[in-house]
Amino acid sequence: MALPGPIDPPHRLLMGPGPISAYPSVLRAMAAPLVGQYDPFMTATMAETQELFRGVWNTSNEATLLVDGTSRAGIEAALVSLVRPGDRVLVPVFGRFGHLLAEIAERAMAEVHIIETAWGQVFPVSAIEEAIVRVKPALLALVQGDTSTTMNQPLDEVGAVCAKHGVLFYADATASLGGNAFEADAWGLDAATAGLQKCLGGPSGSSPVTLSERAVEVIRSRGRVEAGIREAGDASSADFVRSNYFDLGMILDYWGPRRLNHHTEATSMLYGARECARLLLEEGRDAVIARHRRAGKAMLAGVQALGLGVFGDLAHKMNNVVAVEIPDGVPGDAARAALLEDFGIEIGTSFGPLHGRVWRIGTMGYNARRDAVLSTLAALEAVLRRFGVAVPNGGGVEAAADLYRGA
Amino acid sequence: MALPGPIDPPHRLLMGPGPISAYPSVLRAMAAPLVGQYDPFMTATMAETQELFRGVWNTSNEATLLVDGTSRAGIEAALVSLVRPGDRVLVPVFGRFGHLLAEIAERAMAEVHIIETAWGQVFPVSAIEEAIVRVKPALLALVQGDTSTTMNQPLDEVGAVCAKHGVLFYADATASLGGNAFEADAWGLDAATAGLQKCLGGPSGSSPVTLSERAVEVIRSRGRVEAGIREAGDASSADFVRSNYFDLGMILDYWGPRRLNHHTEATSMLYGARECARLLLEEGRDAVIARHRRAGKAMLAGVQALGLGVFGDLAHKMNNVVAVEIPDGVPGDAARAALLEDFGIEIGTSFGPLHGRVWRIGTMGYNARRDAVLSTLAALEAVLRRFGVAVPNGGGVEAAADLYRGA
Repeated sequence: MALPGPIDPPHRLLMGPGPISAYPSVLRAMAAPLVGQYDPFMTATMAETQELFRGVWNTSNEATLLVDGTSRAGIEAALVSLVRPGDRVLVPVFGRFGHLLAEIAERAMAEVHIIETAWGQVFPVSAIEEAIVRVKPALLALVQGDTSTTMNQPLDEVGAVCAKHGVLFYADATASLGGNAFEADAWGLDAATAGLQKCLGGPSGSSPVTLSERAVEVIRSRGRVEAGIREAGDASSADFVRSNYFDLGMILDYWGPRRLNHHTEATSMLYGARECARLLLEEGRDAVIARHRRAGKAMLAGVQALGLGVFGDLAHKMNNVVAVEIPDGVPGDAARAALLEDFGIEIGTSFGPLHGRVWRIGTMGYNARRDAVLSTLAALEAVLRRFGVAVPNGGGVEAAADLYRGA
Repeated sequence: MALPGPIDPPHRLLMGPGPISAYPSVLRAMAAPLVGQYDPFMTATMAETQELFRGVWNTSNEATLLVDGTSRAGIEAALVSLVRPGDRVLVPVFGRFGHLLAEIAERAMAEVHIIETAWGQVFPVSAIEEAIVRVKPALLALVQGDTSTTMNQPLDEVGAVCAKHGVLFYADATASLGGNAFEADAWGLDAATAGLQKCLGGPSGSSPVTLSERAVEVIRSRGRVEAGIREAGDASSADFVRSNYFDLGMILDYWGPRRLNHHTEATSMLYGARECARLLLEEGRDAVIARHRRAGKAMLAGVQALGLGVFGDLAHKMNNVVAVEIPDGVPGDAARAALLEDFGIEIGTSFGPLHGRVWRIGTMGYNARRDAVLSTLAALEAVLRRFGVAVPNGGGVEAAADLYRGA
């Protein structure tokens, strides 16, 4: 092929279920010059980033750090480090990403038990407790916000149930963190992981993780220092984690005071993650959640005012994404393509039982903004009309603008 | 803590064994706006990046892609995808990173056999063949350039030996790729992995991988589509890869025409990796290697002209790093700190048997440059003098400059 030029992406307003457009200052942080792996500036930046993410997670967990990979790298690191082969893991599944937790736990050779509820619903805590009593798992793995259904599983009472039954409690907050309440300590989480590319407003490629002291004890009991840097006195467990890259014990030793060499920290992703957390705390954690709530309500009002149906139990919808029923006769993918080509706006398709039935429209991170919401609704109205749908003129935009005006 | 400001790293000239200062245009690429995961621009950029890396690797392998993680993520993906629990793996160890390959293969539950040679040496192909005949491994895992010793293991005859004995041949080219010859096809590699943060001149966090057809067959025989997106007709092997994130079969389905959802590609790291490869091909693969060779020779001449000893078999030294013996009486870490604090120049410490005995000085990627070499030598001379070493005035700089002038 002829050698291409430097990267020059087209303008996009990313209003799907994620990834979404990053905050401009996060992109600027990504371009900051590199420093060495053990430069005092680097280790200070790592420590600073840990402290910032304690604020994001609402936790005092010392073991708060980043895994160098996408959000699913964080999930796998948590599960493979906490779950021994043969351990029972309970996964309540209410959408695609519950299946993913089960899949990753199966790959880690756990004995996986799932309970399922219909797409568009969440679990009452009683159903989770019943299953815990029946299955007696070592760990409960639960998605908070599942973008495949837009549902936000309440977690606030689950930690107490887990503690009562001696079960480790892990939550995947990839799609929800930053745009919906998350209280790692108050809700009794032992482990939680996320990504940057949803409500945190950064690029995919770094996974924030937080671990309770109890989780760290489990991980430490499986400790093993790698041969190349092992010293006398470094014990090695026969029950070691079946991954080097995802062994959170080693990653903790790298982020901790011992600074034991493991991977080479992905410096640019660290800079980006730090800026995501910094922006969130600068605006204020509750203010950011409120901004997501407002944008989500405005988008919901807008699509409903366009006459479109909405999927799922709205009482448990995440703030940051809505599943909009595709009107009869409208070719869903062609309409999405028209939005992208004519307006530079991306909305999302869907998975599994919802495939072809709904579009998923996100309002998250940088794009949980009034102008992003109104522009998307205006463009959607135009595209729906082009495909022959009778939509009220301007109704979607006005309903959303009314909500922003507090009407 | 008080909320910190945006990231603002100090100026650094990174002349250690990596990570090194990124090319400015790579940093610019990191800041490019994001697009959606299945945006036509995104999938075209992924395909373009694959083609660019075929040029970097010297291969026509269709299965050429990135793993979203640091270089060790690429290593683990290759090993866990190619090696079944119980498979025999042979690792010739000539430095720290051979131990790492053994460690990662052990975590993947392989039966690992190692052969060792003294630090500062490489293996003759005959020693590797003898061990293959004795061990009968399923896979040979071999580091090309091991920065811990600065040695560059010749690989050109190893592929034929592996093919003769029916052994898969994997090489870790993290520290060598781009600065030293690497011929994936001509040398008979079945799998090779690297990182961006060495001779490719980018940030850590993306791992280029290339796989032969034979390797892809092995990986495909272990295929499993995850539950959340499985369709009728998707077979699932009982012998599945013990990792979801590192299952190269799934990653191939994401990068390939089926575009099956797996992780969300780390867009900014993709942009950076693409620019690393693009720059290398724009300058010319052989020209870049020659630039590394020249910078390496100049740095070697410079430190020798300063009267410093050099560790290891110079006939097999990598172009991009040299291990310099710390003169008697000089506190190695204090001297490195002085270089960093007074000159903003970073050189490297060392591991294991060389710890406290040598500094490692790199000349790689963007910093395989005349001004970087001469500035480092000038600063090193000043620091050595401060610590009481009798060094010839200007000798290091002049020897290196002479080499650049072709004297």
